[in-house]
Amino acid sequence: MLSQDGCLARRARLWNSVPADCEWLLIADPRHVLYLSNFWIHPQTFSAGERAWLLLERDGKATLLGDNFSLRSRAADPFVDDEVMVKWYDHKHSVINRDHALLKAAEEVASRLYGRSGAVEAEWLPVGAFELLGLDHEQHSVRRETSDLGKPGSVDLGTTLRSLRRQKHSDEIAVLKECMRAGEAGMLRLREIIRPGVTEFEIFRAVQDAAIAAAGRPALIYGDFRAANATHPKVGGLPTDYALQNGDMFTLDYSVVLEGYRSDFTNCLTVGTPNPEQQRLSDLVSAAQRGGEALLKAGSRAADIWHAVNRPILEAGLADKFAHHAGHGIGLAHPEPPILVPDSDDILLAGDVVTLEPGLYVQGIGGIRIEHNYLITETGYERLSNHVISLT
Amino acid sequence: MLSQDGCLARRARLWNSVPADCEWLLIADPRHVLYLSNFWIHPQTFSAGERAWLLLERDGKATLLGDNFSLRSRAADPFVDDEVMVKWYDHKHSVINRDHALLKAAEEVASRLYGRSGAVEAEWLPVGAFELLGLDHEQHSVRRETSDLGKPGSVDLGTTLRSLRRQKHSDEIAVLKECMRAGEAGMLRLREIIRPGVTEFEIFRAVQDAAIAAAGRPALIYGDFRAANATHPKVGGLPTDYALQNGDMFTLDYSVVLEGYRSDFTNCLTVGTPNPEQQRLSDLVSAAQRGGEALLKAGSRAADIWHAVNRPILEAGLADKFAHHAGHGIGLAHPEPPILVPDSDDILLAGDVVTLEPGLYVQGIGGIRIEHNYLITETGYERLSNHVISLT
Repeated sequence: MLSQDGCLARRARLWNSVPADCEWLLIADPRHVLYLSNFWIHPQTFSAGERAWLLLERDGKATLLGDNFSLRSRAADPFVDDEVMVKWYDHKHSVINRDHALLKAAEEVASRLYGRSGAVEAEWLPVGAFELLGLDHEQHSVRRETSDLGKPGSVDLGTTLRSLRRQKHSDEIAVLKECMRAGEAGMLRLREIIRPGVTEFEIFRAVQDAAIAAAGRPALIYGDFRAANATHPKVGGLPTDYALQNGDMFTLDYSVVLEGYRSDFTNCLTVGTPNPEQQRLSDLVSAAQRGGEALLKAGSRAADIWHAVNRPILEAGLADKFAHHAGHGIGLAHPEPPILVPDSDDILLAGDVVTLEPGLYVQGIGGIRIEHNYLITETGYERLSNHVISLT
Repeated sequence: MLSQDGCLARRARLWNSVPADCEWLLIADPRHVLYLSNFWIHPQTFSAGERAWLLLERDGKATLLGDNFSLRSRAADPFVDDEVMVKWYDHKHSVINRDHALLKAAEEVASRLYGRSGAVEAEWLPVGAFELLGLDHEQHSVRRETSDLGKPGSVDLGTTLRSLRRQKHSDEIAVLKECMRAGEAGMLRLREIIRPGVTEFEIFRAVQDAAIAAAGRPALIYGDFRAANATHPKVGGLPTDYALQNGDMFTLDYSVVLEGYRSDFTNCLTVGTPNPEQQRLSDLVSAAQRGGEALLKAGSRAADIWHAVNRPILEAGLADKFAHHAGHGIGLAHPEPPILVPDSDDILLAGDVVTLEPGLYVQGIGGIRIEHNYLITETGYERLSNHVISLT
């Protein structure tokens, strides 16, 4: 889980990113709230989908706002100074609209905001809360690509937070490494069970169970659990009841989500011995991945990385068979910047956690994708995923 | 999954519940959007936590608003007439803030709303969208317990939708029954594996896998996976590494979530042969449950049901050992009205799906809870859960 030091450091970075006259910030996106406070609701609870909001004040105070059931559904202790908890349900009386308990929590802090300049996260804070808070529309704004952050009164909190989230702190990397270990256990399980006759859904169940066993706690699993073949080289998504056949190529591209953070890596196994054409595709995507790795470093252009990944594929005459990104950032969402694509404007930053995932999908042969996850450093990278990439 | 007929019938009920001069409705809560359109994002996808919004117009038109990745992450085909899909990511260029693509989708329909009276769902629609839509604040409102729905211009869409959601349609009941069958499979697995030495976490893994195997597709599992004993009679929440011991009482109170809908039922098994005191608690909660069942019928007062459940417990001198609700509604959230508690104002409606879950937690003996799920009818109920309730 996230640490108090990490949460405080992230809040300090946020305060450094907003105008000096901004005295309070009201954050609503559950991912940002987790990022800044360690408050989150496990998706495997009855409160999944419920929310709490975070009020930050420049003097350092952090206040969590929520209904009593949502706040008590916390998966871990939040690092806040105060909680405004509005009773929604007491096991004695009928309940009101649960959202209205949350709105009341916001109303309770309204007097602390009056007359002080601040900013709301306008992409997630609902209009109902905004009105109850009695906020002047001039106090916040939503800027989009043409953001002019830094002008007094102009604060795009959502985009600012998304930018800050790129550069991971050590507590975030520790969680990501737990995701990686769990993901690797699922990859190993796939090797043990893959055979003609096993269904995609059976593989999903086995991989999910192995990953969770390794994590030591409930976790969300998602990804592509589909078998490709010469006729259908590009498939993806949740598993079906299809039973694997000799010659199929099973690409397991999946994520393990712990505390909101996720791994995202991939290997492709053939059912039975790979034929020479399958092996050639495998060799090519490995060369492509190595090409990308050579450029992984703070300051590299994302577009250059895409082209480095694409080069071996291009030289092999298969450029049109690699029609997707070479990788992307991961963290509390997927995909996230930097986006490793041919026309990307992104530049790698130290602290970015990215994937490299070359793939080839060739009618008459089959489909393959491989993927590792990397922490970008000033001098290169630390590879976070340690699963074996090979067809057998 | 939900049906087109069901979605259209629910939209018709919604239109009948808002003022006649209301020409459009903008819905943002993902649960309401699913309820009315069958659009939902599986929590086991990379788009988990992303959103789409639903614009309904009085002429019957339904329009889904979203970014291209979120809309394409649909778990099933939505029943809408149009989609406003804003490109967020094309595998070629850097991405903007994903939320801003969603906001742009809202902006694209703004001209259809100008000058026409309508209502936004103010608990979930973010202030950013509201401003981009250029809406007059007079066009919507948030009313709370003191709601005066029906007055021109006063529309509490969120609360209206929550009320409508109580009375389930046949397509919703069909999904709920799938949840029940999967939940029963997990209950059976528990009986097979319970023994001294097995850990709570191993039970969770086995129950999860059995439920998902029965569902035939990935599903969320959550609930209480904890062992109680004479010293700690009241425990709950996600599993720990605790290894069960002879004499423990393992209460499995859990939900299977499919397409957003959930079962929620319970049984308690003893580890080893129950002792006479454990058996007495079991007999008492069964009598309590039968007491509640006798009143399950449209028109019954929720408070009366609580007292009927409590009566055998009260007569046994254990009233203070049953300190929670006797049950509650379930559907797209948990708990939902009607709330079966002593001071409830709720009245049962035909179409309500409720739980009855008497429990007893007695220092020196242990803890037990049992639970079934019921569809309320005009004349009584249909019990939806068919798991065996017994200590062994």
